[in-house]
Amino acid sequence: MAPSPILTSAHKIAIAGLGLIGGSLARRLVDRGRFVIAWNHDEGPYEAARLAGIHCVRTLEDLAAGKPDVLVLATPLKVMPEMLDRLAPVLTPSTTLTDVGSVKGWVADRVGRAGLSDRYVGVHPMTGNERSGFSSSDPNLFEGALWAVCVDGGTDFGRFLTVADMITQGVGDELIVMDPAAHDRATALISHMPHVVSTALADTLVDSPDRNLAVQLSAGSWRDMTRVSLTDPERTRAMVEENAAEVVPLLREVSRRLTAVAEDLEALAPDSGGGGSSRSEPTADRFAAFFSQAQPYRDYKTAQAGGEGASTSTIDLGAQDWRELLTASAMRGERVERFLTARRVRVSRGPTM
Amino acid sequence: MAPSPILTSAHKIAIAGLGLIGGSLARRLVDRGRFVIAWNHDEGPYEAARLAGIHCVRTLEDLAAGKPDVLVLATPLKVMPEMLDRLAPVLTPSTTLTDVGSVKGWVADRVGRAGLSDRYVGVHPMTGNERSGFSSSDPNLFEGALWAVCVDGGTDFGRFLTVADMITQGVGDELIVMDPAAHDRATALISHMPHVVSTALADTLVDSPDRNLAVQLSAGSWRDMTRVSLTDPERTRAMVEENAAEVVPLLREVSRRLTAVAEDLEALAPDSGGGGSSRSEPTADRFAAFFSQAQPYRDYKTAQAGGEGASTSTIDLGAQDWRELLTASAMRGERVERFLTARRVRVSRGPTM
Repeated sequence: MAPSPILTSAHKIAIAGLGLIGGSLARRLVDRGRFVIAWNHDEGPYEAARLAGIHCVRTLEDLAAGKPDVLVLATPLKVMPEMLDRLAPVLTPSTTLTDVGSVKGWVADRVGRAGLSDRYVGVHPMTGNERSGFSSSDPNLFEGALWAVCVDGGTDFGRFLTVADMITQGVGDELIVMDPAAHDRATALISHMPHVVSTALADTLVDSPDRNLAVQLSAGSWRDMTRVSLTDPERTRAMVEENAAEVVPLLREVSRRLTAVAEDLEALAPDSGGGGSSRSEPTADRFAAFFSQAQPYRDYKTAQAGGEGASTSTIDLGAQDWRELLTASAMRGERVERFLTARRVRVSRGPTM
Repeated sequence: MAPSPILTSAHKIAIAGLGLIGGSLARRLVDRGRFVIAWNHDEGPYEAARLAGIHCVRTLEDLAAGKPDVLVLATPLKVMPEMLDRLAPVLTPSTTLTDVGSVKGWVADRVGRAGLSDRYVGVHPMTGNERSGFSSSDPNLFEGALWAVCVDGGTDFGRFLTVADMITQGVGDELIVMDPAAHDRATALISHMPHVVSTALADTLVDSPDRNLAVQLSAGSWRDMTRVSLTDPERTRAMVEENAAEVVPLLREVSRRLTAVAEDLEALAPDSGGGGSSRSEPTADRFAAFFSQAQPYRDYKTAQAGGEGASTSTIDLGAQDWRELLTASAMRGERVERFLTARRVRVSRGPTM
């Protein structure tokens, strides 16, 4: 591991919440030589955590009093407002605050209400599994994970570098920079909405009188489309509800697309079996376009599978507003591999759409 | 392979269409000792087919003139009406007609229009891959495949036994019996509708300005939900259009479910992040029910993965109407493993919902 002397160092890292994510992160950071202090709402995991080299403290306030370089909130979203209210009077200005919650706009808003925006940079490591609790934690959960780092017009560059150091040098991962709204839209699109759609398919099967016959005839397409519906429904429900503002318009959009296909299909094939006699060309073209429209995604996946188009480049953050440079890079699908200096980053880019 | 002296034998089998399915079926049957004659609309695959032990003939009419026990239509759906019109005057009454098309109600209707219903039993082997043509054919495509066998009130028992012999003894597969409408409903549910839904998700990504950012954040759920959209869009379009009558109501049903979730979600979480203050209990219950409703499917998948509940039993087809006995068995999720005698079948049953 190459040292990174130029970056603002995140040597002492405090973690609030030793669940699957917080616990795995703490262990990963300890394994890679960082000093980690932690607090959990109950002391159940403390014995195991101490054996893993994590310094456990009695209260959340003790965590802040330890004057860490970074304090990571890894608690459930619903208790974050309370955590923030408790931290506000005790957090030293030198501590950078972050959280690993799965929605970012809402947390940034709550951080603002607690008066802590000046020292906050929210993140979201794209990792996890179906388990929970410190007993399921695993430092390898972070192996190769991409971290979304959320910045806005008020984000301090030094705070950003501290968090980036924790991710790239501390954890050994790559990151991608965006504003909180873009994060919440993107995760709604590629995760939360698909979870609802998958569940809707499983519900449709369960409600069908043909269910036991139909499932016998099912193959790979059905299995893949419903795998996501098998995950803990309570966790899915909470995740969707927490990002409701972004999930709702996407559900309506997919619903509209399906209704439009149904209408075209009905107009095209009144007796099924390959098209009615009164086939309308504009309708047929629109129906065909529904299928051909996804071609850029097919081409992207083909290019990705073939390892095509991967390249690296460097971005000079001093050239203009660093936030604009990094969010524009992310919109091109680039990931930040590492900081060459505090003002120069190396980014990698695969195929794009 | 145990012999099956009691069943009406399907020794000489004619196959019209040497594409992926017809070619693989022909080769499988030859490998297992059946006599196979075949015709294709062009003679391109004849040399390879003859090397594989398939007797190729010059015209469709020659195929009928060979007086096979079974004639299998393995041509694209759209040419089947023409094939049936050509076969009607030349097919000997002793030949049982079947087809491996992916929609069954429409084909049965066209068979009726050609005056051939008295000798017809449609089937659908649940196998295939993304390739096409005899050059892609493979006898192993049928290894362990389940065949849907479609019967209705007019289906002759002897014809059914002939087709069942081809499947169970000839190909070595299991079968499941249903009426053509149930087949078309079930395949729309577990395959055709999900293909449209998967494509709608890919289209939504492609249309999003965040697409290259979003896809960087994507993981297993997105990959699984869109894998099906990567298959040949022209083939998917044709498949969906051919079963339009059953796909349309399912698209509307899924669309309605997604809209209903969007409405509940909007009512529940006006500012996102875990629920608004004016949370309505009936709405919250309905939203939670959307996720819990799929529980029988989750339980079914868990039981299936654990190998639970598998059992075999026998059905005496002489006890009452054979069609009712076999379609009721299929609705319970049972598969016909083999015929013990012409009037006794052994069925296997896994977990059910």
